[in-house]
Amino acid sequence: MADPTATAPLSRTADTSAVQIYLRELHDRITAAVEALDTAKFQRDCWQRPEGGGGESRVLTDGEVFERAGVSFSHVHGLQMPQSASNLRPEIAGAAFEAMGISLVFHPRNPYAPTTHCNVRFLVAAPQSAPAVWWFGGGFDLTPYYPFDEDVLHWHRTARAACQPFGAGVYERYKQWCDRYFFLPHRNETRGVGGLFFDDLNEGGFAHCFGLTRSVGDHFLPAYMPIVERRRSRPWGERERNFQLYRRGRYVEFNLLYDRGTLFGLQSRGRTESILMSMPPLARWEYDWRPDAGSPEARLYEDFLRPRDYLAELDANT
Amino acid sequence: MADPTATAPLSRTADTSAVQIYLRELHDRITAAVEALDTAKFQRDCWQRPEGGGGESRVLTDGEVFERAGVSFSHVHGLQMPQSASNLRPEIAGAAFEAMGISLVFHPRNPYAPTTHCNVRFLVAAPQSAPAVWWFGGGFDLTPYYPFDEDVLHWHRTARAACQPFGAGVYERYKQWCDRYFFLPHRNETRGVGGLFFDDLNEGGFAHCFGLTRSVGDHFLPAYMPIVERRRSRPWGERERNFQLYRRGRYVEFNLLYDRGTLFGLQSRGRTESILMSMPPLARWEYDWRPDAGSPEARLYEDFLRPRDYLAELDANT
Repeated sequence: MADPTATAPLSRTADTSAVQIYLRELHDRITAAVEALDTAKFQRDCWQRPEGGGGESRVLTDGEVFERAGVSFSHVHGLQMPQSASNLRPEIAGAAFEAMGISLVFHPRNPYAPTTHCNVRFLVAAPQSAPAVWWFGGGFDLTPYYPFDEDVLHWHRTARAACQPFGAGVYERYKQWCDRYFFLPHRNETRGVGGLFFDDLNEGGFAHCFGLTRSVGDHFLPAYMPIVERRRSRPWGERERNFQLYRRGRYVEFNLLYDRGTLFGLQSRGRTESILMSMPPLARWEYDWRPDAGSPEARLYEDFLRPRDYLAELDANT
Repeated sequence: MADPTATAPLSRTADTSAVQIYLRELHDRITAAVEALDTAKFQRDCWQRPEGGGGESRVLTDGEVFERAGVSFSHVHGLQMPQSASNLRPEIAGAAFEAMGISLVFHPRNPYAPTTHCNVRFLVAAPQSAPAVWWFGGGFDLTPYYPFDEDVLHWHRTARAACQPFGAGVYERYKQWCDRYFFLPHRNETRGVGGLFFDDLNEGGFAHCFGLTRSVGDHFLPAYMPIVERRRSRPWGERERNFQLYRRGRYVEFNLLYDRGTLFGLQSRGRTESILMSMPPLARWEYDWRPDAGSPEARLYEDFLRPRDYLAELDANT
C-alpha cells in the first residue's frame, strides 16, 4: 500500500538535500571509526558517471584489522531506471531516476571476525505518465566464519534497537526480509546470520521513513565495532584462514548472482571498481568440500546458515 | 531461418543416443589425456537430479600441471525449460526439455599456461502446442594471463581446422560469436583471446549439425594440449602468480554474471558443485589495480583483451 503523499511532486514531499547531507555525514563517521581502529588509511576516489552524477569511494587495503574495507557514497541520476531497481515496481520501468546511498563491505583479516555489509539508499523515479515516487531502502547484515553466540546476540539486539522507535513488528519484518534476501538458493544457505533488510519504504510519510533509515544507518557502527574489537586479536592459523577464504567464495557467489545493488550498479553503468570493491581480496573454491562432523566449521553450517530467531533463542532478557 | 526437419518429431530426425555415446566417449578421451599429462587423478562423482536425469563430474585437484581441472558430463530432462536457455527462443519458454553435454574448465598452476573452457551440448524442447525442436551448441575459448603469439595462433588455426569441412565462413562466424559472448561489458574486456562459440545450431540437418559439433569437440585436445605442454615448466614467481590470481577474478565475474551455461545449470537446479567446479581454486580482487605501462601485464590488456583477427594479423601462411 503506497503512501499517497509519496506520489506527490518530489519538491513538496521529500527533502533530497537533507538525505544527501545525512549520507555524507554517515560516510565520514564510518570512515573515521575504521581509521581510528586500524593501521591503514582509506584511499579516496571521486568519480563522475558520464550519464549523470557520481560518487566517492573510500577503500582501505591491508590494514592490521581489515584486509579490505570499502565505503562508497554515490548519487547518480539518469533517464532510464535500470531493470534491477524496478522489478518490484513495473510502473516505473524505464523512468527517469535519481538514486543516492552509501554502501559498505568490510573484510577483516582475522577469521574469527565476521565480514559485514551495510547499505542505506534513497531513490526517486519520475515516470513520464505518472507522478514521481520516492522510497528508502537499506539494512545491515553479518557474515561470520566462526560465529560466537554473544556476537550474534549483540548484533540482533542492536538491530532491534534501531527499529524499536518506529513501531511494533518493524525489527521482526526487516529481520525476516533480510533472511529471505541474503539467501543462496543454489546452496540452500543464508549468507550469514542476517540482520535487517528493507526496500520500497514510503509508508508513513517522508519524515518517518527518513527517520527509520537514519536510525538503521546510525546503528551500524554500534552493532559491528564491538564485535570486531573483541575478535581482532584472537589467535588463528592456516585452518581458520582456509575456511575463511572458502566461505568468502560464497560472498562472491551471492554478490554476483543475486545482489540487486551490485546488479543495479553494473546495469546502470556505475563505476565498476566502486561496485566490486565488495569483492573479498582473496577467495577460494574447493570442489565438494564438507566440514568434518562436530568441527567448528560444521557448527557454522548446522547452527547458523538458516533463518533463526536469535533473540528468542539466545537472549535470556528478551 | 530454422531447418524444417528440425521441428519434426525427434525420433525421426535426431539420434539422441548417438549424441550421448559421442559425449561419453569424449568425456573419457579428455579425462585420459589430462591424467596422462598430470600427476593427480580425477575424482569421479555420479549424481542424479531429483527432477530428472543426472551426470558424472570428474575433478582433478592439486596436480603438478593443473591446480584444478573439471570435466562434467550431464544429461538432464524436465518439464520446464529454464529461462536462461530460452532467451533466444521465446516459443519454447516453459517447454519440456532434454539437455546433454560435456563442459570443462582447466585452471593450470603455471601463470604462463592459459585457462581454458570447452563445451558441447545438445538440447531438445517439446512445447505443448508446437512440434519438438532440437539444436546443438558449443565451442572452446582460451584465457591466457601472459599470452604468446604462437599459442594464440595455434589455438585459432586449430579452431579454423575444426570448422573448415563445414562450409565457408563458419570459423569466422563462430569466432566472432565467441568474441561477443565471452565479453565483460562492465570491464569492457573480452574474457581472453576467444576461439569458437555457437548456439541454436539446427540448419542443414541433424547429420551436418552433429558432425560440426563433433568436430569442435574433437579439436579441443589438439588445440589446448600443445600449449599447456609448452608452458607447464616455464619458471614463474610471485609477481606472475599474483597477476594470475587477479585475472582469475575476471573469470569468476564472467561465469557468475553472464555465463548462460552456469545460470542454466543453477536455474534448472543442477548439481551446484558440478556447475561451480568452473570456479578457480583461488582468486584475488584488488581495488582499482592497473598494470604498469610497458609491463608484460599491460601487454595482455593492450594487445589481447579485445576482438582481433589473429589469423590475419599473426599468420604469415594464411
